[in-house]
Amino acid sequence: MNHENLTIIGVGLLGGSIGLGLRAISNHCHITGYGHRPETLQRAVEFGAIDRFSLNLADAVQDADRIILCTPVGLFGDLLKQLGPLVKPGVIVTDVGSTKRSVVRLAQQYLPPHASFVGSHPMAGSEKRGVEFARADLCQGAMCIVTPVTSSNPDAVRSIEQFWQSLGMRIARLSPEAHDAAVADISHLPHVLAASLVAMQSPSALPLAGKGFLDATRIASGDAVMWRDILLDNRDNVKAGLDRLQKELATLRKLLAPAKADALTQWLASAADRRDELLQQKLKEM
Amino acid sequence: MNHENLTIIGVGLLGGSIGLGLRAISNHCHITGYGHRPETLQRAVEFGAIDRFSLNLADAVQDADRIILCTPVGLFGDLLKQLGPLVKPGVIVTDVGSTKRSVVRLAQQYLPPHASFVGSHPMAGSEKRGVEFARADLCQGAMCIVTPVTSSNPDAVRSIEQFWQSLGMRIARLSPEAHDAAVADISHLPHVLAASLVAMQSPSALPLAGKGFLDATRIASGDAVMWRDILLDNRDNVKAGLDRLQKELATLRKLLAPAKADALTQWLASAADRRDELLQQKLKEM
Repeated sequence: MNHENLTIIGVGLLGGSIGLGLRAISNHCHITGYGHRPETLQRAVEFGAIDRFSLNLADAVQDADRIILCTPVGLFGDLLKQLGPLVKPGVIVTDVGSTKRSVVRLAQQYLPPHASFVGSHPMAGSEKRGVEFARADLCQGAMCIVTPVTSSNPDAVRSIEQFWQSLGMRIARLSPEAHDAAVADISHLPHVLAASLVAMQSPSALPLAGKGFLDATRIASGDAVMWRDILLDNRDNVKAGLDRLQKELATLRKLLAPAKADALTQWLASAADRRDELLQQKLKEM
Repeated sequence: MNHENLTIIGVGLLGGSIGLGLRAISNHCHITGYGHRPETLQRAVEFGAIDRFSLNLADAVQDADRIILCTPVGLFGDLLKQLGPLVKPGVIVTDVGSTKRSVVRLAQQYLPPHASFVGSHPMAGSEKRGVEFARADLCQGAMCIVTPVTSSNPDAVRSIEQFWQSLGMRIARLSPEAHDAAVADISHLPHVLAASLVAMQSPSALPLAGKGFLDATRIASGDAVMWRDILLDNRDNVKAGLDRLQKELATLRKLLAPAKADALTQWLASAADRRDELLQQKLKEM
């Protein structure tokens, strides 16, 4: 990352955390922020997440060796279309979006042959939004899924993987299709469920909520625009996940009978065991 | 609570925490534990959660001024039936069960007129189990729902409310019916959803789980037998909650279309706002 010009497009929680994280490991890269709100970008400069900012995309990316798209997924199309004629030869472009099929396709469509695109999904974040909540260690210890395709430049793939590793991330490689299917189940569907669980509560039940409810619904506090884009972009997989969840709920519903007590215990114990195993696995990885 | 003989039936996480909490505020009450496993009860004595234990129910309760049932809900029927002829005049009996209609009915059926029963649901706990995880401050700041009925002895109701308040709990009064309906939505349904969400995951998606998934499913790690009893006892309300959740999911599903983007944003923002308001309310109560 030394003597590299890096441009972060969208300097919010994740974009800002990437800037802070890079700054913590290198004083020799030069970080430019691009966005629409000068106040936000000025704050990002004050926090040390970026060195300078520009409200002009051509100015922000013309010298960039590496560009990271950190906006909501729904803006990627417009951005990549604009970036196409602006990027310099040899540039490596990546993103931090929670869906990967669409951005990989858009990059193939809009970026010139002298640019390399590699999709990334750093699985770090929070229900909070804004550069105010950015942290240099946000990515540390978390997983980043990188989604190269057959046409990807192998050097660019290696470079992007090293980039995330330098921020302390573990790397997994998946195809864009496999990524979107798995992440629908493990991340997008849980968001939908948490939001539905909040939405269905009556005003009389809500004050009785305890720590369990607050934890189970924490992800529902995420940014609505970011999640709208994700859910629309990955709606085929989210709907398939909803179908499988409905089947699981139908199974459980049939077990809600005294005669099925043993099967119900087994179903509950099996879910508890599976979640405990996952937790142990995750604790080992940290 | 001074010079009172208290018997805790079932000295696990919650029963043990009640013992430790009482001990922290008074040296003059005498706490007896009852259970089936002498090793567990011996550990509870060593941890200071109880002063002595007995494996014989008559011996454990014959001098008790107050008895707290802390076993899984499914054991309350047998226990109250056995307790009926054993309790001394003036005894006040309560419980910590997550359902209230059945235990209130069982107490009316089995306890003698010289005993008073008042149902309680201290909304404190954890997905952990066993006296090893008991903490003197587990109840501190949490809510306890007390469910008196028209036939309840007002002095016993006051005494039980003071008991929970002395452990730092806030009190809410609800009828057993209103309690079971509200708690199905805010606690039992979230458990069912968390367990279903774990159960539906494919082995390939699970390793990609992040902090959001772990938080959303934490409650699924709860004790299977305890939850089996709760879900069976409250199955009418849990099924009604599942029906309402399905309607909410159907609404959401229809919004997963590009033409519905604005309505989807609004639905997501409304859930996020509602959850944020709840969190602010809960933080104020702490």
